[in-house]
Amino acid sequence: MYADKIPDIIIGRLPVYLRALQRMSDKGLKTTSSQELGEHVGISAAQIRKDISQFGEFGKQGTGYSIPFLLDKLKEILKVDRIWDVVVVGAGDIGHAVANYQGFKNRGFRITMIFDNDKGKVGNQIGEFTVEDTEGMVERIKSTGVKVAMLTVPAAAAQTAAEKLVQAGVKAILNYAPINLNVPSSVKVQYIDPSTHLQRMTFYL
Amino acid sequence: MYADKIPDIIIGRLPVYLRALQRMSDKGLKTTSSQELGEHVGISAAQIRKDISQFGEFGKQGTGYSIPFLLDKLKEILKVDRIWDVVVVGAGDIGHAVANYQGFKNRGFRITMIFDNDKGKVGNQIGEFTVEDTEGMVERIKSTGVKVAMLTVPAAAAQTAAEKLVQAGVKAILNYAPINLNVPSSVKVQYIDPSTHLQRMTFYL
Repeated sequence: MYADKIPDIIIGRLPVYLRALQRMSDKGLKTTSSQELGEHVGISAAQIRKDISQFGEFGKQGTGYSIPFLLDKLKEILKVDRIWDVVVVGAGDIGHAVANYQGFKNRGFRITMIFDNDKGKVGNQIGEFTVEDTEGMVERIKSTGVKVAMLTVPAAAAQTAAEKLVQAGVKAILNYAPINLNVPSSVKVQYIDPSTHLQRMTFYL
Repeated sequence: MYADKIPDIIIGRLPVYLRALQRMSDKGLKTTSSQELGEHVGISAAQIRKDISQFGEFGKQGTGYSIPFLLDKLKEILKVDRIWDVVVVGAGDIGHAVANYQGFKNRGFRITMIFDNDKGKVGNQIGEFTVEDTEGMVERIKSTGVKVAMLTVPAAAAQTAAEKLVQAGVKAILNYAPINLNVPSSVKVQYIDPSTHLQRMTFYL
């Protein structure tokens, strides 16, 4: 609807607001202000008000924001008012950590499958998951309709795996391999590469 | 020097350029253009030229960029023409994955210590590291002069651990805990939170 009109940099801040509001809610808080939220997330109150106002009039002058209301609205905007199934490709160290990660709870995601192309790993148990063979991956993902994937394979295998995911109908890839992926523009990619994050900080040291 | 004048968003793209150039170099390539580099990283040629020109005249009209020269310059700018020692706090699943991660090689970082406050984990071996007790962490970090840390503890423990790191003289923290940290503005923080990255994509689905 308004997806094309809102700058991506604003969309990028909404999950950060959502996370902070969820923590306030967990502590039993019911209302907050852009000032208070700003202190939690390190973003100015004016920026927060401007970002949120892109989507409607969610706050009241003088009384601020209702936390439960703003939580619901942000979840709806980010489409995490539902649970997305997620497939993990790569059963190495990062795949293990991701499969066992407790931080997806209440954030809108649930890992449902994990694949690897190493026959030595296929059939292994990782927490509640049995590692499946990437050979049958495209059909398996297609048949389940999963749209979200996490790619935790080595850099050399990432582009091929990404192409299989695209072929299977995946529309959002969180890529842990330290390489840029070439995928159609209809497929969203986000990157997690600790070296890149660290280099962004050493500039300032 | 120019750290205050260059927008942070440009600094954030430099590690991505560096990573792509390193891969080109590994393949034996010697020169590239902003067009070619742009295709690898998904950023327009004009943006790349503008970003790089902030730091000097590194390319030549018609012949493009020398890859070894631009690599050296970017490493120098990002201060990864050296190796930074890195401390890991938290010896759980993510701490394990990070400690065993091979992707720091040639990127300017080397993990040298890993800490946990769980006495059941202290003394355990993770790859080449022995898990150390956080009780002695501040003094240990101070004495070694480490400035860079990765925080892989649960959300509830992250703020306290971050304060210890600041006290120990750490100036850059890569935080894997799903919570915003309150640290002095002289300390840089970057966040890796897979749920936040995923939510940024589901908006578009």
